[in-house]
Amino acid sequence: MKGLVSLVGAGPGDPELLTLRAVARLRDADLVLYDALVSPEVLALAPRAQRFSVAKRAGRPSLAQETIHRLMIRGARRGKRVVRLKGGDPFVFGRGGEEALALAASGIPFEVVPGITSAVAAPALAGVPVTHRGLASGFAVVSGHAEEAYAPALGSLAPNALTVVILMGLASRRNVARSLLERGWSADTPAAIFVGASTAEAASWTGTLGTLGRAPLPGAGEAPGTIVVGAVVSLASVIARDAIHDVGPALALGVR
Amino acid sequence: MKGLVSLVGAGPGDPELLTLRAVARLRDADLVLYDALVSPEVLALAPRAQRFSVAKRAGRPSLAQETIHRLMIRGARRGKRVVRLKGGDPFVFGRGGEEALALAASGIPFEVVPGITSAVAAPALAGVPVTHRGLASGFAVVSGHAEEAYAPALGSLAPNALTVVILMGLASRRNVARSLLERGWSADTPAAIFVGASTAEAASWTGTLGTLGRAPLPGAGEAPGTIVVGAVVSLASVIARDAIHDVGPALALGVR
Repeated sequence: MKGLVSLVGAGPGDPELLTLRAVARLRDADLVLYDALVSPEVLALAPRAQRFSVAKRAGRPSLAQETIHRLMIRGARRGKRVVRLKGGDPFVFGRGGEEALALAASGIPFEVVPGITSAVAAPALAGVPVTHRGLASGFAVVSGHAEEAYAPALGSLAPNALTVVILMGLASRRNVARSLLERGWSADTPAAIFVGASTAEAASWTGTLGTLGRAPLPGAGEAPGTIVVGAVVSLASVIARDAIHDVGPALALGVR
Repeated sequence: MKGLVSLVGAGPGDPELLTLRAVARLRDADLVLYDALVSPEVLALAPRAQRFSVAKRAGRPSLAQETIHRLMIRGARRGKRVVRLKGGDPFVFGRGGEEALALAASGIPFEVVPGITSAVAAPALAGVPVTHRGLASGFAVVSGHAEEAYAPALGSLAPNALTVVILMGLASRRNVARSLLERGWSADTPAAIFVGASTAEAASWTGTLGTLGRAPLPGAGEAPGTIVVGAVVSLASVIARDAIHDVGPALALGVR
């Protein structure tokens, strides 16, 4: 009996934004290794699995990436159906590529189950399309986690050409804003922070690139956030306001 | 009785990559307005709905965008649950923003249901992560549909800094490649074309930016395609080969 590892994207948080395949893999899983951004409601979809957090927890460091590889490989070698569950999409800043390489090197059967990435969904659920005719003919997605990665990435983008989405950048919003301003982006460029997208904790801040650096964090707690910089942010006030105004909370744009 | 319009992303093609919410909206729909990229298997999930293609069909032009707006608004005013179904994600080059603005302007209740975008999923299902430590600290997504949009967008990206994903660019791959080469991208940059991702028609071509312009189109027929340019493409040969080698077709990476 041979196991299988599924690298599964859990989407932005709301279980209704899981794919059918993700739900099927969770239902059949023997072992689920999950990150900090995965919600309890999503984990509940794997009732028969052993569930193990590989995330950073109060005071304790997160597991080394090699340990995660070892846990996946050991599980699969014992014939288990292993789900490696990641917030958003497994191949968007999820180190999913590294895990796929480790599995391939060990000869472990595996698959990738794409998930809804917050890079697109967090703004969309707040009424901001990342592309829009006349405003943005493309978008770039960068991680705000480490300055040595985001500084050159942001610096590689010509000012005000594409929408820029920064994931995991709440703590570095000051440096992110400065990087773009120094590169020549206009301080008037609309900017937004979306926190807890698709969950009950959803909150947002809207302003400009010039004020992003000192923006108060919307919402409470440690929900993940997405920063969006670009003219498309200005659409939120039209798209989201009218939608939320007209429909009940259960159906409203960005509100559940 | 008040209707509702749901702008729903259908994902790359495989019904298993629909979200739970997309499936629920299709199940309850009275009217589905769908694009060319939506598969029959996905449409079959809306058995009680009137289904209407708003796509270009043999010899006939596609419906004007204003006509689509009118159909959505009229349906909702008659109390119908309308699903506007788009390939991929509704806010990634789907003109979803324009449709949301039209609905908002008419006071029609609406929501956005994000979908899996081929920009991330097409490469992922073939073993290519759009980001990877040491290879790409971000990615940019551009539409290859119209040169007046993609030429400046591609020109705004510093050479070989981020992974570039071009949607709807199969027909313009020659000009797309030339735009990047003229901007200073290395002709040796790995490049790939993924066609029919997640479906039985999945096929791919792998080469370099220097050969992309004259690449033969993989697969047959008119399946949609995704072009990826960047060092991450080189991972496909490691990630996908071993995965496909070891598991059966129903579970293999990129094969169903």
